[in-house]
Amino acid sequence: MITVEKALKIVRDNVVDFGIEEIPLSESINRVLKEDWRTDRDLPPYDRVTMDGIAICFDSFEKGSRVFTVEGIAAAGMPQQTLQDKATCLEVMTGSILPNNCDTVIRYEDLDIQNNQAHITIENIRCQQNVHFKGQDRSQNDLIVSKNTIISPAEIGVGASIGKALVKVARLPKIMVISTGDELVKIDEQPLAHQIRRSNVYRILTTLQDYNIQADSDHINDKPEEIRTKISRYLQDYDVLILSGGVSKGKFDYIPQIMEELGVQKLFHKIKQRPGKPFWFGQKEGCTIFALPGNPVSSFMCMQRYFRAWLAWSQVGEVPSPPFAVLQEDVFFKPDLTYYLEVKISYSSDGKILATPKKGNGSGDLANLSNADAFMELPRGRNDFSAGEVFPIYWYR
Amino acid sequence: MITVEKALKIVRDNVVDFGIEEIPLSESINRVLKEDWRTDRDLPPYDRVTMDGIAICFDSFEKGSRVFTVEGIAAAGMPQQTLQDKATCLEVMTGSILPNNCDTVIRYEDLDIQNNQAHITIENIRCQQNVHFKGQDRSQNDLIVSKNTIISPAEIGVGASIGKALVKVARLPKIMVISTGDELVKIDEQPLAHQIRRSNVYRILTTLQDYNIQADSDHINDKPEEIRTKISRYLQDYDVLILSGGVSKGKFDYIPQIMEELGVQKLFHKIKQRPGKPFWFGQKEGCTIFALPGNPVSSFMCMQRYFRAWLAWSQVGEVPSPPFAVLQEDVFFKPDLTYYLEVKISYSSDGKILATPKKGNGSGDLANLSNADAFMELPRGRNDFSAGEVFPIYWYR
Repeated sequence: MITVEKALKIVRDNVVDFGIEEIPLSESINRVLKEDWRTDRDLPPYDRVTMDGIAICFDSFEKGSRVFTVEGIAAAGMPQQTLQDKATCLEVMTGSILPNNCDTVIRYEDLDIQNNQAHITIENIRCQQNVHFKGQDRSQNDLIVSKNTIISPAEIGVGASIGKALVKVARLPKIMVISTGDELVKIDEQPLAHQIRRSNVYRILTTLQDYNIQADSDHINDKPEEIRTKISRYLQDYDVLILSGGVSKGKFDYIPQIMEELGVQKLFHKIKQRPGKPFWFGQKEGCTIFALPGNPVSSFMCMQRYFRAWLAWSQVGEVPSPPFAVLQEDVFFKPDLTYYLEVKISYSSDGKILATPKKGNGSGDLANLSNADAFMELPRGRNDFSAGEVFPIYWYR
Repeated sequence: MITVEKALKIVRDNVVDFGIEEIPLSESINRVLKEDWRTDRDLPPYDRVTMDGIAICFDSFEKGSRVFTVEGIAAAGMPQQTLQDKATCLEVMTGSILPNNCDTVIRYEDLDIQNNQAHITIENIRCQQNVHFKGQDRSQNDLIVSKNTIISPAEIGVGASIGKALVKVARLPKIMVISTGDELVKIDEQPLAHQIRRSNVYRILTTLQDYNIQADSDHINDKPEEIRTKISRYLQDYDVLILSGGVSKGKFDYIPQIMEELGVQKLFHKIKQRPGKPFWFGQKEGCTIFALPGNPVSSFMCMQRYFRAWLAWSQVGEVPSPPFAVLQEDVFFKPDLTYYLEVKISYSSDGKILATPKKGNGSGDLANLSNADAFMELPRGRNDFSAGEVFPIYWYR
């Protein structure tokens, strides 16, 4: 049985590069960028007017001019206009190119325009005001978004503006999610007295949807031959298998043994943690296997803590540091295990993240997950955790 | 020009109920539940064994018995077994029903089994240990997830376990996202010197994907007749129109006037805020119109602050309180406007959310959005904001 730290190190040492694919920008949200983005033009690409009003040559204003004849108009989308006479002005619209011979824009709010004469009604005019100058944000060929960035709407906008109709992103693994256990029936079946409905696979499948991963799923009964045949095929067809159940000490927990028979390298089995102690992790050639415990809270916790970290290390190269939250109640936990406590998150008005324990009735209490928002990681080697102490949290909503 | 508070009140007063639809559970992630979920059975539905080992009658242990003949086995998925002789035991697997005449489970780790005799190797055995009793988490017909909950993987698991193959959720609005502005060209076009590529619509469309909304999009040039014809049709065909551009003081900012001509009720135009001052909001019969400013930072900020709030009020009935973060640098802001400052978020080891300003070059600086994670709301009526002060943040990644 290994520590959480050791398990995470092994997970990190066994990341997989799934390569790169090119997809439409509009489908790339939440994906990991695998190219550096550089600007194809200066940003802005021209001296861009930022207010509706008039453009003048500041020199005229400085020399005392307060009334300017309107010579014409420069709209957004028009080629650059030219002010012919520096004593006059051009009306300019937000987004248009600043006309030649102009350097300053005065907004309509500070003007009184009558009979084609623009009277400036305030004295506080600065040279070059209300112009967003060419290259002010970025120069052509500047690095604008780095490789390994997770694409948010902000990057989508940048990509659009620099013409990235297609973007190179990390390919996502092809994943099969498998539940095992003879007691499990389908959602739409009426379980007998000794049966329950499958729920782990659905929690896992929808967690994967955060990454735009549409995984396949299957259920295998506790029959060694059936498990062997199906796993053998899935090892060939998928990049990742996520199993739940069959990894503990029970007579029908066939998974570790069958994995060994199929030539899968066991990387670890059992972690000093609660929930999730029986987690089994292995690899065979291109396929990585997360064989999670069958208890609903256990399998879900392992997804949040280990699968997410493995995917981030595989795709981004690093896992972001988790937030820390302030424990709101004393907690006593006796076993010498890292304890993943279910917590409800709230925010204080002084900028803190608060974590209120929702202990529930152990790793079988799937309903309790709905009362909480995150797992708080309480370290091994202590039994008492006091209100006011701060520990990392792993959010699941 | 109205305040942010007044604008939000108007947004709240103009929510729309889009009704309810029934969809498969596996597609319901991030949707808003529109039915109360009650347990169809006790949870757990039977006295559920939580460890692999043996089940005994504790009475025998208490009377001194430490060796138990193994009578048989109870696997998960088997109907309930019965212990025939209280001096013996049954092997039991995690997830199985506790056999009749048993009340206590001893795990394999605390046993030595040889020749069908299970020797208990520890003395610290509690009656009823390692059993998750019927109804311990919830009783049949208990409220387990409430109407208006946003469905996370935790609720997906609950729904699966209580047999909700189909779930009632708030119907999402049908949305059209429209950019206007003659200077805009498509992503895959090479812009001329006075042109730029469209980016606002992509930022907006991918923000909507957070809600599983696949919106349509269009671009309309600054031609009043074209705007009138298209908007007129879209008002009929969509629940929501989100426009960007054409709402300011420019000569070609036709949107407010055309909306009026088409009988759209203006609910407000212009808010005391930066960015996003020219935001126009209106409604006509079933259609709600967010006419956002054309500047990229402005339109994006209005989406995060106003559209998200409107959708949450429409679907959930309330908007969650935003987190507060600690400003990391002094900020000076002169105008008498609410200031939405772009900030980069990090976490301190004492449980705080930290916000580092990324001011950028104003509302046209779309590249700067990629340097930040959130908008921090700095209130009107002040010019100086000090490092260490705490303000609400609106996350966009």
